[in-house]
Amino acid sequence: MFSFRRIKSSLYYPIILSILSLKSLENNISYNDKEDTNKELKIYTEKEVSTHTTKETGIWVIYDNNIYDITKFIPNHPGGPDKIKLASGKHVEPFWSIYPQHYNSKLPKELLEKMKIGRLHDDDILKNKSKNNELKKNDPYSSDPIVSPLLNIHSAKPINAEAPGVLLTDNWITPDDTWFVRNHHPVPINIDENNYKIILSGNGIKTPIELTLNDLKTKYKPTKIISTLQCGGNRRGEMNKYGITSGTPWDISAISTAEWTGVRLYDIMKSIGILYDEDFLEENNITNVQFIAIEGMEASVSSKKALSKNGDVIIAYEMNGKPIPYSHGYPLRVIVPGHVGVRNVKWLSKIVLSDEESKGPWQRSMAYKGFGPSIKSIESIDVEKIPSLQEQPVQSAITYPSMNQKLIKNDTEKIIGYAYSGGGRGIVRVDVSIDGGNNWITAKLKEGSEQPLDKAWAWTFWEANIKIPDNIDNLEIICKATDASYNVQPDSIKGIWNLRGINNNAWHRINVNVIEDNDTDDTVEE
Amino acid sequence: MFSFRRIKSSLYYPIILSILSLKSLENNISYNDKEDTNKELKIYTEKEVSTHTTKETGIWVIYDNNIYDITKFIPNHPGGPDKIKLASGKHVEPFWSIYPQHYNSKLPKELLEKMKIGRLHDDDILKNKSKNNELKKNDPYSSDPIVSPLLNIHSAKPINAEAPGVLLTDNWITPDDTWFVRNHHPVPINIDENNYKIILSGNGIKTPIELTLNDLKTKYKPTKIISTLQCGGNRRGEMNKYGITSGTPWDISAISTAEWTGVRLYDIMKSIGILYDEDFLEENNITNVQFIAIEGMEASVSSKKALSKNGDVIIAYEMNGKPIPYSHGYPLRVIVPGHVGVRNVKWLSKIVLSDEESKGPWQRSMAYKGFGPSIKSIESIDVEKIPSLQEQPVQSAITYPSMNQKLIKNDTEKIIGYAYSGGGRGIVRVDVSIDGGNNWITAKLKEGSEQPLDKAWAWTFWEANIKIPDNIDNLEIICKATDASYNVQPDSIKGIWNLRGINNNAWHRINVNVIEDNDTDDTVEE
Repeated sequence: MFSFRRIKSSLYYPIILSILSLKSLENNISYNDKEDTNKELKIYTEKEVSTHTTKETGIWVIYDNNIYDITKFIPNHPGGPDKIKLASGKHVEPFWSIYPQHYNSKLPKELLEKMKIGRLHDDDILKNKSKNNELKKNDPYSSDPIVSPLLNIHSAKPINAEAPGVLLTDNWITPDDTWFVRNHHPVPINIDENNYKIILSGNGIKTPIELTLNDLKTKYKPTKIISTLQCGGNRRGEMNKYGITSGTPWDISAISTAEWTGVRLYDIMKSIGILYDEDFLEENNITNVQFIAIEGMEASVSSKKALSKNGDVIIAYEMNGKPIPYSHGYPLRVIVPGHVGVRNVKWLSKIVLSDEESKGPWQRSMAYKGFGPSIKSIESIDVEKIPSLQEQPVQSAITYPSMNQKLIKNDTEKIIGYAYSGGGRGIVRVDVSIDGGNNWITAKLKEGSEQPLDKAWAWTFWEANIKIPDNIDNLEIICKATDASYNVQPDSIKGIWNLRGINNNAWHRINVNVIEDNDTDDTVEE
Repeated sequence: MFSFRRIKSSLYYPIILSILSLKSLENNISYNDKEDTNKELKIYTEKEVSTHTTKETGIWVIYDNNIYDITKFIPNHPGGPDKIKLASGKHVEPFWSIYPQHYNSKLPKELLEKMKIGRLHDDDILKNKSKNNELKKNDPYSSDPIVSPLLNIHSAKPINAEAPGVLLTDNWITPDDTWFVRNHHPVPINIDENNYKIILSGNGIKTPIELTLNDLKTKYKPTKIISTLQCGGNRRGEMNKYGITSGTPWDISAISTAEWTGVRLYDIMKSIGILYDEDFLEENNITNVQFIAIEGMEASVSSKKALSKNGDVIIAYEMNGKPIPYSHGYPLRVIVPGHVGVRNVKWLSKIVLSDEESKGPWQRSMAYKGFGPSIKSIESIDVEKIPSLQEQPVQSAITYPSMNQKLIKNDTEKIIGYAYSGGGRGIVRVDVSIDGGNNWITAKLKEGSEQPLDKAWAWTFWEANIKIPDNIDNLEIICKATDASYNVQPDSIKGIWNLRGINNNAWHRINVNVIEDNDTDDTVEE
């Protein structure tokens, strides 16, 4: 396809005119306009730009389909060099959308203008425009919402995606754009909000009861719960390095936090005469509460957790003060604080009081069961007898620096990360080591550390200053957390490896390169 | 002092008579009687006997003040060689008292008779008789109950003692004789049962309320709870090998289990109008419940744990169907299932509803606080800010074989142990490794494994068969447990070492000697 590559010398102008005559000028009028303001610009494809991510090649980014060489600017980036490097070889708009200061000031664009070196190839511009339309043809996933471009996509159908770790601790309440997405089916989008209802049935309920979305919003007191959801497979990628497992190879970001608004399940049950009372539950054989979604997903938790006031289980209709996004369960999602993500069923349509767990594969089959390290094949065990994952073990990870980042000798660096434990067990301490675990620095606990220790449904952020040694070229930085029951993370993966690759909570280890000050090039090594 | 050592040859009889004339024959009449039945016996002191514990020296035991060489009998002991070896160099009566079959049959005494080699020195016999009387002079601890002779005593004043590990898993409900004792003061023994009362007071209670022991036994429904109590310092001895800590160097037996009978604190509070209701507790500033003992000990737990029906906290008046022994809190002890031993306050006299934790050193000072591994001195930290130990992390230990035991190449050995986790989190799996943790065998869960996974207040026993390799002389056997929240034990002590030496739940490692079959001597190496 023809492209309006600017020819450097006006000597060639007649040639350009002759080529233009072969095309419809009308169709290309906008490109002609651009050309006038983009003098001396070369044309590059997205693929070409994507190779420019190091000092040697130059670090390029795309903004408004123009291409900029930001190599020399990186050390001066007000948000720090690590953040700007995330966009190396990519479009910057997705990143700017979560840092709106780039749009609120003229400065970023003025600075960029001086670094402009080229223009994106028309093929890529058109491809990006038509990408969404193409996706929608003959595909059950065609109506899936567009995934935030900030997320790294592990699979598109169903969508499983997570943010780069370094973005995770920017906000204690995770913005929609960096919330991990973990779905099992196409996202339901044809929701008729006015007629949406959930059905309550099962043991202790004589006739099934319907509640509309409007009932929930208007007839009950709203309850707000800040809860962290973590996929059972978070950090599975690391576990695969020890021995291959099955499932999505999540890095450290299959975990996010929101403030959920909804109705306490305790209040709903009270309104239909189901009181939280051990004798009542026993007499009526209510041991589990099953949650069923409109797309077929189902999961259950114990009745003690689901129905007690203390359990803080809510039927949520808002995430961070707005209707829950489609990908996260619009219009209703159950929030089971302190339990693994999969129990927080999205697109909720039925609640069943039962004497058994849900029958679905997410409850009774191997997907969310923690096998021993000796189990190398599923045939050798009785999966039903293994307890399904509910509360998760204590966890922590380093979000800054990133793996293979360059740090400077003798610099004091602020190590940043998150920590979380299941069952509402608060984080009492995070320790950081740079000598393999022989000596530890106690990190400072930040956002989240004020939560009650027996009801800490959300993660805790932390930071620790370390001095980069001057006698090594590579440094391993380790973190580990201790929760309110004084449970700790295991040193290594070798005792917790399991066929499904769940519950990886080994000490988190980040390897960084240590360089002399004058080696600094602020580039990202590929 | 003179002793009636039997002189082998009757040639010396005149000499004996002349010596006897120097003493009162009347005082020694019993010894003369003994002498007649103990012909050809040498006299040994307890100290001499205590050195005979190996094949080389011969393995000796004392029964009824006679001394026996049981070296050759050990492989034939019906209870197994490991159990009989516990008495090496010692009196056997304490051991026989927990295996009453020794008294129910004539066989043990008949067998022993053939192995008799000597008689205990009179000094030791008299010393043992007078030991108790001597202890009682001018000593606040003089009235402390005699400690079961099966226990290894870490300190006598106050008494801190634990059973040899190998006895621990003989009974899922620990017999009194092997229950660990951990006291902070002299044991209160002058208890007037008829006038014994507890006082309930504090926030939400206008006038303090007295309840007599008789009230508790007659006016309330009895509740039985099987609960394991573990000292926060269990396994501190191992931690000291990594770096010295402070406190009693417990081995693996500062943990025991009983069936407790008493009154649910929920029922008591209900009877005085204190309902378990979050709003009520909040309005009345009831966040903690403090328990105060008659000897000055006090500790507290959260009101949620103490007052909810689900918490299963009881005021116990029986331990294993009998009045609680003096050393364990007679006549009343609070049982806080799933919480560290120290919160189960003995000799209970006051219950206070409060908006703060107990002020005592066991709650707010360093004794039961988990510092980070970086804390090398108490001056560097604000101890009050560190959460006090309540629920304990997941734990397990190997009770058989013992450290340095000899096992035979190619034999299949049954490895035995216990596992436990705080907060009622049941044990879902125990793994055993004999190659440093690279490969694991899943153990079979035994007694305790049927407990509900969210209310497993007692430990779980387990066993695993391993084949002893034939290509090594020393073998390290490792165990680790996983609880219902999928928390696990850390690989090593290096991440959990702390100044107070609490919460040691690293993988438990036992080193055994591996020998050829014909090397078997069934002796205990010192």
